[in-house]
Amino acid sequence: MKLFFENDYNCGCAPEILRRLEKENNNPRVGYGNDDLTAAAAAKILKAVGKPAGEVYLAMGGTQTNATVISAFLRTYQGVVAAQTGHIGVHEAGAIEATGHKVLAVPNVVDKISPADLKAYLSAFYADENHTHMVQPGMVYISHPTEYGSLYSKKELEEIRQICTEYQLPLFVDGARLGYALAAPENEITLQDLGRLADVFYIGGTKVGALLGEAIVFPKGMPPFFPTHAKQHGSMLAKGFVTAAQFDELFTNDLYVRLGQHGIDMAMKLKKGLAAKGYGFHIDSPTNQQFIIVTNEQAKALHEKVFFEDWEKKDAAHMVIRFVTSWSTREEDVDALLQMM
Amino acid sequence: MKLFFENDYNCGCAPEILRRLEKENNNPRVGYGNDDLTAAAAAKILKAVGKPAGEVYLAMGGTQTNATVISAFLRTYQGVVAAQTGHIGVHEAGAIEATGHKVLAVPNVVDKISPADLKAYLSAFYADENHTHMVQPGMVYISHPTEYGSLYSKKELEEIRQICTEYQLPLFVDGARLGYALAAPENEITLQDLGRLADVFYIGGTKVGALLGEAIVFPKGMPPFFPTHAKQHGSMLAKGFVTAAQFDELFTNDLYVRLGQHGIDMAMKLKKGLAAKGYGFHIDSPTNQQFIIVTNEQAKALHEKVFFEDWEKKDAAHMVIRFVTSWSTREEDVDALLQMM
Amino acid sequence: MKLFFENDYNCGCAPEILRRLEKENNNPRVGYGNDDLTAAAAAKILKAVGKPAGEVYLAMGGTQTNATVISAFLRTYQGVVAAQTGHIGVHEAGAIEATGHKVLAVPNVVDKISPADLKAYLSAFYADENHTHMVQPGMVYISHPTEYGSLYSKKELEEIRQICTEYQLPLFVDGARLGYALAAPENEITLQDLGRLADVFYIGGTKVGALLGEAIVFPKGMPPFFPTHAKQHGSMLAKGFVTAAQFDELFTNDLYVRLGQHGIDMAMKLKKGLAAKGYGFHIDSPTNQQFIIVTNEQAKALHEKVFFEDWEKKDAAHMVIRFVTSWSTREEDVDALLQMM
Amino acid sequence: MKLFFENDYNCGCAPEILRRLEKENNNPRVGYGNDDLTAAAAAKILKAVGKPAGEVYLAMGGTQTNATVISAFLRTYQGVVAAQTGHIGVHEAGAIEATGHKVLAVPNVVDKISPADLKAYLSAFYADENHTHMVQPGMVYISHPTEYGSLYSKKELEEIRQICTEYQLPLFVDGARLGYALAAPENEITLQDLGRLADVFYIGGTKVGALLGEAIVFPKGMPPFFPTHAKQHGSMLAKGFVTAAQFDELFTNDLYVRLGQHGIDMAMKLKKGLAAKGYGFHIDSPTNQQFIIVTNEQAKALHEKVFFEDWEKKDAAHMVIRFVTSWSTREEDVDALLQMM
Repeated sequence: MKLFFENDYNCGCAPEILRRLEKENNNPRVGYGNDDLTAAAAAKILKAVGKPAGEVYLAMGGTQTNATVISAFLRTYQGVVAAQTGHIGVHEAGAIEATGHKVLAVPNVVDKISPADLKAYLSAFYADENHTHMVQPGMVYISHPTEYGSLYSKKELEEIRQICTEYQLPLFVDGARLGYALAAPENEITLQDLGRLADVFYIGGTKVGALLGEAIVFPKGMPPFFPTHAKQHGSMLAKGFVTAAQFDELFTNDLYVRLGQHGIDMAMKLKKGLAAKGYGFHIDSPTNQQFIIVTNEQAKALHEKVFFEDWEKKDAAHMVIRFVTSWSTREEDVDALLQMM
Repeated sequence: MKLFFENDYNCGCAPEILRRLEKENNNPRVGYGNDDLTAAAAAKILKAVGKPAGEVYLAMGGTQTNATVISAFLRTYQGVVAAQTGHIGVHEAGAIEATGHKVLAVPNVVDKISPADLKAYLSAFYADENHTHMVQPGMVYISHPTEYGSLYSKKELEEIRQICTEYQLPLFVDGARLGYALAAPENEITLQDLGRLADVFYIGGTKVGALLGEAIVFPKGMPPFFPTHAKQHGSMLAKGFVTAAQFDELFTNDLYVRLGQHGIDMAMKLKKGLAAKGYGFHIDSPTNQQFIIVTNEQAKALHEKVFFEDWEKKDAAHMVIRFVTSWSTREEDVDALLQMM
Repeated sequence: MKLFFENDYNCGCAPEILRRLEKENNNPRVGYGNDDLTAAAAAKILKAVGKPAGEVYLAMGGTQTNATVISAFLRTYQGVVAAQTGHIGVHEAGAIEATGHKVLAVPNVVDKISPADLKAYLSAFYADENHTHMVQPGMVYISHPTEYGSLYSKKELEEIRQICTEYQLPLFVDGARLGYALAAPENEITLQDLGRLADVFYIGGTKVGALLGEAIVFPKGMPPFFPTHAKQHGSMLAKGFVTAAQFDELFTNDLYVRLGQHGIDMAMKLKKGLAAKGYGFHIDSPTNQQFIIVTNEQAKALHEKVFFEDWEKKDAAHMVIRFVTSWSTREEDVDALLQMM
Repeated sequence: MKLFFENDYNCGCAPEILRRLEKENNNPRVGYGNDDLTAAAAAKILKAVGKPAGEVYLAMGGTQTNATVISAFLRTYQGVVAAQTGHIGVHEAGAIEATGHKVLAVPNVVDKISPADLKAYLSAFYADENHTHMVQPGMVYISHPTEYGSLYSKKELEEIRQICTEYQLPLFVDGARLGYALAAPENEITLQDLGRLADVFYIGGTKVGALLGEAIVFPKGMPPFFPTHAKQHGSMLAKGFVTAAQFDELFTNDLYVRLGQHGIDMAMKLKKGLAAKGYGFHIDSPTNQQFIIVTNEQAKALHEKVFFEDWEKKDAAHMVIRFVTSWSTREEDVDALLQMM
């Protein structure tokens, strides 16, 4: 059987979650997230975030979450500021535009928006005498970790927050892979930091051990009528308790942290092993996505035995490939992959 | 504990489905519905529908499915024709309008569009000399069973099909509760009939035994790039195999039919019992939703012991309440409810 | 040559306006409504409205204006309440839905929403336990005069205002034919009343003597960044001074009132003449649209000699036809029409 | 009085057009472009384009036209390819996104998309294994002249056409300033070339002598129900004959060409004069927009006496300013400006 390092959403869910779903299976509950499990999961999440007066909404997937959240905050004449490589601008099939809003791309290094670039973009916008004919920045979107596995430092996040405050822009953090950030040794940003610095962020379940589900956290509370808006955007689950049971379990006995930790342990083992073998890295990624430089022939040969993604061309003879580990990666597979390379 | 007759999405899923999810849990698969389980589920569904060359797309919930399907078929200047009580026009928070399209309500009796009313609406539209300033009907949407539990006869469906063909309108059948139609003694419409008469329909999983999921069936194939469109509308699941495993199981050993049958058996037992006790019915429903006339006092007292929905006022002293059974309704609960009334 | 009673937008513009355009033609001005003429026109309008601190925005046509204004006020989860026969719900090709919002039709008599019906609709909405799954009323839209030429009484408008205030709904008055209301003897509502009671309304130019143009009046000021929103919706004219010159002229020496008065004089002469000849009226219209009952044969014969619109069937042998007068209707044409009938 | 070189939409209209409007003023006509003048203008335009079987639709302004045309061609999952500096991506307030579509920016030199860059973009798109999660290119948009006054060569346009054909993409040419291209000595592209190579283009009236109006030309005919779509997007004028009279006049006795010629004559006189005085140019523009490099102090001083736009910073001490001439520029003003510098 081929090894699997293609993504972090390739298996069902953590066994604890499966057991929990089984345990809750026969208890009838009211629909649409008005049940006790949804309330319990929200309370646990908000406690972890340090914002007990905040609110949580459980959605089903990342693209859906991004479009639903962003369109809830923006006014018609506004767009969302994102890194040029941001997921919403590239790999979400125009979901943001389908809600009527432009993604305003800020040039970036390794998938991060630097505070300086953000500031430069915003001050240039308002200095432009034609800016009333242009899409007004209405929100800042960043990913942590980013699509390249990189991490914002606490200083960077605090500076971005300060700029957002200065320009009255809500800050949204896409945490599709947040579990792998939290477990990374280099990571400086805690759930409490996000609760303090973001206006809204989400804790990804799909990529960190759940069957599906993303927990949207509003540290200061939801925008008015957010559930109606979510229903309109196809983001309301009839059986809200299905995602709730999973998040309640993820925030019981530190399961979310432990799942993230396993993904990071596997990634670091793989990273060290590859470095020891002399492979070069496109990016020095501290999280569960590793971008390795191989020859075109190596890539081709590897595809016979391993599921993984070709990322981009490096030069005529080399390419960047991506290996992804996760909560479900088996250590023997990492060993096998290292042996193979 | 209170009895539960509020809806048909109150428990997790059929035990066979839970076991299947467990069985598939550790096999890594590629994402976004490009896996073997999705292909297998589609093949089984298409075989049951009698359209092996058709296509299937698995989405997560009803509102999402309706908005995604309808906006994939309509052009900008078109709207979707629906009964005035149709789900898309009333209880989906404007999800269709959020995609830019009007729901064109046709007056109806007990939630069904009659072929005569549909024909009258369409011929009046094209006879109107101002119709180029009006939203053009671009699709016909019906529910089977309807929101009131009623069923189209085969003759009605064939006539609606004929009218759609005459006006070149695709016909979309919302089958959120299709399992309960298929099992109803009065039902005349088979999956094969839907495959033959509809351009697109969906087989509801959420209300018939799945954790979540709706199988959209395109007997003649999908519109171009439908998966990209679905991604854009938040209807693409990263772990497509999670819904696929459930539909594969639902279409193994007639599970879907058996789950629907149980819901109908419970509904008919309840209906007969209530009739025997002299209760009147708002509608003579052949499916799993029963609309009973009670006094305001009865309704109030029942709410203490039973979860159910107040439907509408009948007169100053009476109201219509709704009891819903499902695949998960326990016979002892029906007995208890009957005893209570 | 055939007589023309088909609509009130069949000629160019009032001669005073043409002279004014000629006079302003060679003075270079900055674009997009940032010029002196736009400011002057706004000041005159606001003076007439009695709200000097308000704001005015000049758009090009009615459908455009309605879609731009309504989408500026509504949030994603909201719709606009209108009479079932309201222009936005019927004859604007789905322009409101194209901005993502539902038109919430309230049953009505002769094109007006009665305060009682509005109140009933709103209180039923909030009483519905499923209302968070429904489109929330976010604005009330009425036309004065209505599409049937009828007029709201001052009492009706004040009651509607009160209901809007109670439910925190902005009130929008479509004044596409406002000039003909202001000149009607039965009319009780002045520009000042609109300034006092509406949150936004527009003074129609297209149908009352301008080449094109509608003056949107915001008695309490525009929503934030309304010009950017209007630009986005195609409602910003590069040569803003072209509509401004026209509105400045319309509000000089009471031209707007005088043009409306002529349209009403012609309508009343026609109405009286037809009544004297024994014709019945579908509606007792006090404004420039008259709805007359004729036999099918009469209608057919008239079409040979007169441009007018068939409105609707009355019974098997009769139909309702519409005659429209305007600022440009010639008295000899009214005489000729009367003679003909 | 200050000189005016800020834009090409600063005066009313050519005197011939004003006289024509006066001449047509009192002839009643049916609305919405169903009149004889609209038909006559379309016939003249199509004759000039060499496509008598094509169709023409008259809209009111550029942003409106772009949004209406582009959204009529694209399917939900598609975006429009444009130069990074393209008007639709920068200065139209997100009008394209408001219709649900992404503007796909292709890197460009001096505002033009090179055939090579276009080809590279498209082949990279389809080579990307994730392209079904990305917005599909569904149309190519170019401006002629571009926002920087530059012109496509015939060879470039033919190559772009060929690429569009290969990828089955309609080609849309924004001709807001087309009159100034047609009159430029360097221009190689005729109206017939556009008729042959574009699927849709528009002939700008607003910037070339009309009060307002853009003539959208569909050499192979309109998309189905385009007028309904246009009505929905606020682009249908009740008095269609107002724009029709202007375009009929513009295409009588070569008025359109002559107006463009005057704008170009003035621009070339200005350009030569400035070059003789030793000024540098940001771009060697062959049309009516000239981009001149001046010191910051010069720019500041000039603003006292001349209306013009600061374009961008060149370096710490210098900036690029833009002078625009048009059909209405007076030669004495060019002389005065040259003297001043």
